[in-house]
Amino acid sequence: MSGLFISLEGPDGAGKGTMLTHLMPILKKHTSRTVVLTREPGGSPIAEKIRHLILDVANQEMTGETEALLYAAARSQHLHDIILPALAKDQIVISDRYVDSSIAYQGGGRQLGTDTVASINHFATGGVLPQLTLYVDISPEVGLSRIKKYRDTPEDRLEVAGNAFHDRVRATYLQLVHDDPQRIVALDGAAPAKELTAAAWHEIHSRFPQFFPA
Amino acid sequence: MSGLFISLEGPDGAGKGTMLTHLMPILKKHTSRTVVLTREPGGSPIAEKIRHLILDVANQEMTGETEALLYAAARSQHLHDIILPALAKDQIVISDRYVDSSIAYQGGGRQLGTDTVASINHFATGGVLPQLTLYVDISPEVGLSRIKKYRDTPEDRLEVAGNAFHDRVRATYLQLVHDDPQRIVALDGAAPAKELTAAAWHEIHSRFPQFFPA
Repeated sequence: MSGLFISLEGPDGAGKGTMLTHLMPILKKHTSRTVVLTREPGGSPIAEKIRHLILDVANQEMTGETEALLYAAARSQHLHDIILPALAKDQIVISDRYVDSSIAYQGGGRQLGTDTVASINHFATGGVLPQLTLYVDISPEVGLSRIKKYRDTPEDRLEVAGNAFHDRVRATYLQLVHDDPQRIVALDGAAPAKELTAAAWHEIHSRFPQFFPA
Repeated sequence: MSGLFISLEGPDGAGKGTMLTHLMPILKKHTSRTVVLTREPGGSPIAEKIRHLILDVANQEMTGETEALLYAAARSQHLHDIILPALAKDQIVISDRYVDSSIAYQGGGRQLGTDTVASINHFATGGVLPQLTLYVDISPEVGLSRIKKYRDTPEDRLEVAGNAFHDRVRATYLQLVHDDPQRIVALDGAAPAKELTAAAWHEIHSRFPQFFPA
């Protein structure tokens, strides 16, 4: 594949969304390639149907294994329908979440085992990984308080999971950064949005200058 | 667990449904325990929603990996919601399809790898296997011709998959019988329904007489 695949990771409330709002125009300004912004779970019609099942609060009795397998199923379809076709056309793909989310949330948070969840996701993706993963780090306290402040919709299943869960998610993310520093870079989600965006753009541009010649 | 867990396997058209119609009254006649008949994919509310996604012909572009992961997700939920609670109450559970279906159809038929699909299903089920699996064997030619004769609903995704697919499914089932003869018994789906039922009842009764004292 000749395109560029970047994933964004981190808990809700870390500031990924705000950062993306600032980052997308910068990326587009510096390249003539199409920049595709997509997200997981979901991103294509079948994957969106699976997303709907996962996030439906009515499904409270879902087992952790079912949840992990549904995330991996949606990911396989998203990769096939959206990411790989774009990369084949030399485009730049930014995916809001990818395999590391499952390893952190299901493997670490739900304690299903990071190696096991990684191996299921290897099956789902055929081993396709992003060239760069930007992990926006934030403490659960700050992240969750931001969510409560700005959102007036009901909490989804993951948000109601409890503090120990979110601590394990963060610890797993930090372990992933430690284990694969070539691919995964941690950014400080507590920094102001413009600083965070500048740090993200620096990582992208310095690593892949050939994709952003303008 | 102190109940009895039996799964039924084999292609559509092998005669599992007809056999079940004859077998269920025999089982109930010989035991005072509750006999639970259930099926995969599906069998519980969340699992049924996943089943609907899998079998929807509109989802033709589903990847093989997505399909295999959805089957495993539905299975985990079905086990948790229906099978394990019944076994904990000393009941007898007959499941129309279980892990061997995924190994045969996705691992063998769709060529995703029998070991890989088995390992995903080990994760989904925590390694819970039936005490007995009855595999109703039939050639694809006979099985598919029976389906076409008796059904006037549209074909589902698996039925339209082609002859080579169904040959691989059967070969994988026969390999599973060969590899685990203690658990899996092959029955002749070409035999008349009453003979097939008698053979099934003989296997069940001779192996688990303590469950059928009446």
